[in-house]
Amino acid sequence: MNRRNFVRSSVASGIGLSMLSVPNLVFGKDDRKVNLGFIGVGMRGRNHVRVAGARPDVVIKAICDIDPNSIQEAQKVLKEVGQTNVATYTQGEDDYLRMLERDDIDAVIIATPWLWHTRMALASMKAGKFTGVEVSAANTMEECWDLVDVHEATKTPLMILENVCYRRDVMAVLNMVRDGLFGELVHLECGYQHDLRNVKFNDGKSAYGKGVKFGEEGFSEARWRTEYSIHRNGDMYPTHGIGPVAHMVNINRGNRFDTITSVASKARGLHKYIVDQVGEDHPNADVAFRMGDVITSLIKTVNGETIMVQHDTNLPRPYSLGFRVQGTEGIWMDLNQSIMIEGVTSPPDEWQKDTELMEKYDHPLWKKYGEKATGAGHGGMDFFLIQAFVEAVKNNEPAPIDAYDAATWSSITPLSEQSIALGGETMQFPDFTRGRWMNSKPQFALSNA
Amino acid sequence: MNRRNFVRSSVASGIGLSMLSVPNLVFGKDDRKVNLGFIGVGMRGRNHVRVAGARPDVVIKAICDIDPNSIQEAQKVLKEVGQTNVATYTQGEDDYLRMLERDDIDAVIIATPWLWHTRMALASMKAGKFTGVEVSAANTMEECWDLVDVHEATKTPLMILENVCYRRDVMAVLNMVRDGLFGELVHLECGYQHDLRNVKFNDGKSAYGKGVKFGEEGFSEARWRTEYSIHRNGDMYPTHGIGPVAHMVNINRGNRFDTITSVASKARGLHKYIVDQVGEDHPNADVAFRMGDVITSLIKTVNGETIMVQHDTNLPRPYSLGFRVQGTEGIWMDLNQSIMIEGVTSPPDEWQKDTELMEKYDHPLWKKYGEKATGAGHGGMDFFLIQAFVEAVKNNEPAPIDAYDAATWSSITPLSEQSIALGGETMQFPDFTRGRWMNSKPQFALSNA
Repeated sequence: MNRRNFVRSSVASGIGLSMLSVPNLVFGKDDRKVNLGFIGVGMRGRNHVRVAGARPDVVIKAICDIDPNSIQEAQKVLKEVGQTNVATYTQGEDDYLRMLERDDIDAVIIATPWLWHTRMALASMKAGKFTGVEVSAANTMEECWDLVDVHEATKTPLMILENVCYRRDVMAVLNMVRDGLFGELVHLECGYQHDLRNVKFNDGKSAYGKGVKFGEEGFSEARWRTEYSIHRNGDMYPTHGIGPVAHMVNINRGNRFDTITSVASKARGLHKYIVDQVGEDHPNADVAFRMGDVITSLIKTVNGETIMVQHDTNLPRPYSLGFRVQGTEGIWMDLNQSIMIEGVTSPPDEWQKDTELMEKYDHPLWKKYGEKATGAGHGGMDFFLIQAFVEAVKNNEPAPIDAYDAATWSSITPLSEQSIALGGETMQFPDFTRGRWMNSKPQFALSNA
Repeated sequence: MNRRNFVRSSVASGIGLSMLSVPNLVFGKDDRKVNLGFIGVGMRGRNHVRVAGARPDVVIKAICDIDPNSIQEAQKVLKEVGQTNVATYTQGEDDYLRMLERDDIDAVIIATPWLWHTRMALASMKAGKFTGVEVSAANTMEECWDLVDVHEATKTPLMILENVCYRRDVMAVLNMVRDGLFGELVHLECGYQHDLRNVKFNDGKSAYGKGVKFGEEGFSEARWRTEYSIHRNGDMYPTHGIGPVAHMVNINRGNRFDTITSVASKARGLHKYIVDQVGEDHPNADVAFRMGDVITSLIKTVNGETIMVQHDTNLPRPYSLGFRVQGTEGIWMDLNQSIMIEGVTSPPDEWQKDTELMEKYDHPLWKKYGEKATGAGHGGMDFFLIQAFVEAVKNNEPAPIDAYDAATWSSITPLSEQSIALGGETMQFPDFTRGRWMNSKPQFALSNA
């Protein structure tokens, strides 16, 4: 019985993955391989194909996409990284279900438009595949619950592929937090502040090209992402910010998001972008955008920390995830890459460049693999993301960022939307762990393994 | 009939100050003098005594304080700036009322503990004195209304002495906003982020000294400010941040604060500060502080801008008012003293140091008086603050920052407190202008006059 069959039958028979033994570990040479399938090989998916495919412990068995061009580009990448004999699934929107029927695939990575994340992740878990899903994992509250419920019913791990959790500075700061450098945490900030106007619109032929096309006429993300700015007024992309911060305050592991209130500014940026390029008479100048340009949410945790989360993608601005980590003994902000720790940095009450402390608290994972990671894309984050995913699959471990994280972080989207619609009303977070958060322990990136 | 009598009789007869003629202006030499009285000559009050007293157009007639030491120190300052023949009022808490009876005082500057701001301002307006009151002007909603109602009944100007409105970078950015550099404003941020632990506690003998004394045992602000951290959980000090921002989005002049929601973090900083110094057994280690260490409020204006305001005074951190001004064409932040304006700064999507644009948009007031202002305290802000006050008195003009500003900005204190107490409930701002905001025009710092 090979691993994949063992996994499937153990799922069928209700044995948790965490109970599986890992026989290879007791021998010296680790020649275990993980067989992967990919749903979605657009720009983001191909990045994962490249990073995963380059690993000696990964065999890519299949890729799936409805877009022939994406498949063609993915095949070039597969060739580059030496992955041969890869099946393709291209027969329409539901062909991923056929791919999931293969019993030579251990794990699946999903990098598709948001509309498909949850439904594909559910199908993948039901097929017994260790499932990695891109961010956000879900866009409605029902989908958040679906992720948790199907994960619990199938006992199949779900990992939300939040790469910023592996950013070098973010991991170093997590290390500082765990070492008590900030004292007791009190207030944190984060967000997704990224001028996406040339992602939401293009010329229909290339990404980041000028042009005001979107939807069926658009290219890449403009094909599907822009419609969320038309139809929904909420924080549609909270996880790059909230993921790292959630680890620092142990959300779902002794702590929990309690409430959220959100406000949205007026919506001006996208309409102006269209008019500036093609004038008031172009039909796209009549499109009404519901999404406020800057959406600010305030989360309170049951342990008393406050967290500010922002979504700011429709205006000209420098990229920033706006991290701030503040406790009883110090504060760090990524905007100015500065830190102040009482009794550690000096002079008191002044920002110091965070360089020295970043080096000192460099996470063991980065210390060990940093050189290898560099060049893998996104400043090396994606190397660690894929490594964590592959190692968890190999070792039959729970996902290091799990279904509860996926549901909790993603639920900021519907909750912020509801709060805004109700004029800033306070919304309660569901307890996706159904009480288990009280006794769960932190598990993310505790060592260099 | 001299000016002060004219003012008083015009108030009595219901003639608005703005209707008074300014005969001296038509002559060449301007030898008009303003006669001032000061209520409160502690550290802040003495700063005003120094800045105002040094002006050739100011005669200081009287000072009032219940603390003999403050009077003594103030007399040294008066001597330094050449103000002689100054009466002192020191006979208890109500002696300011006796000072207000003098008919040789045109205008009064109030720099007392918060508890006294509104009641003294009301008495001063009722006495027909052009009234300047330190920040915040009011601490309860009733006090906010009192300021407006008494101002309207007496037709006596009230100016909230918010010096940050005159900070050089803030005025330059206001200039940029008015010039359209940011396009249409969308989102703004501000706050009072200042480690006040050694202001809230000291050794009872000196400011900023080590020690955990406060209340009757404390020195200077520790005598009265600390109790607000014990009893109230709200943003007790919003005006340094919100004042400058309110001018940028024309609050009460075509725009209005609509709603506010606030959350407070846990309260840890002050207790920890006490314990770290004197241990758990000291009686002050038993004091329970209600004020959350970081209080974050989200304001929405009727014109659709969002404004984040923070209050963060109980933790070790570098000083910052956290300004951010963001519109459809660019963004400025004071934390990193950086700016990005589409098509102006380059490369796009990257922060540039704001130095060049700050010089280019230096406010006419600073261009004209900057050299004179330097050294007046608070980076020159206070020079402009006092000049604006004195010039308004001299010219019988309305206060440049008026009773409606004072009430609106100060109302953030009770509104944030109520919102926090109700779990982040959305609160509605009162319309202190009773509808006049719709047609009022901006008046603050429109020229170099």
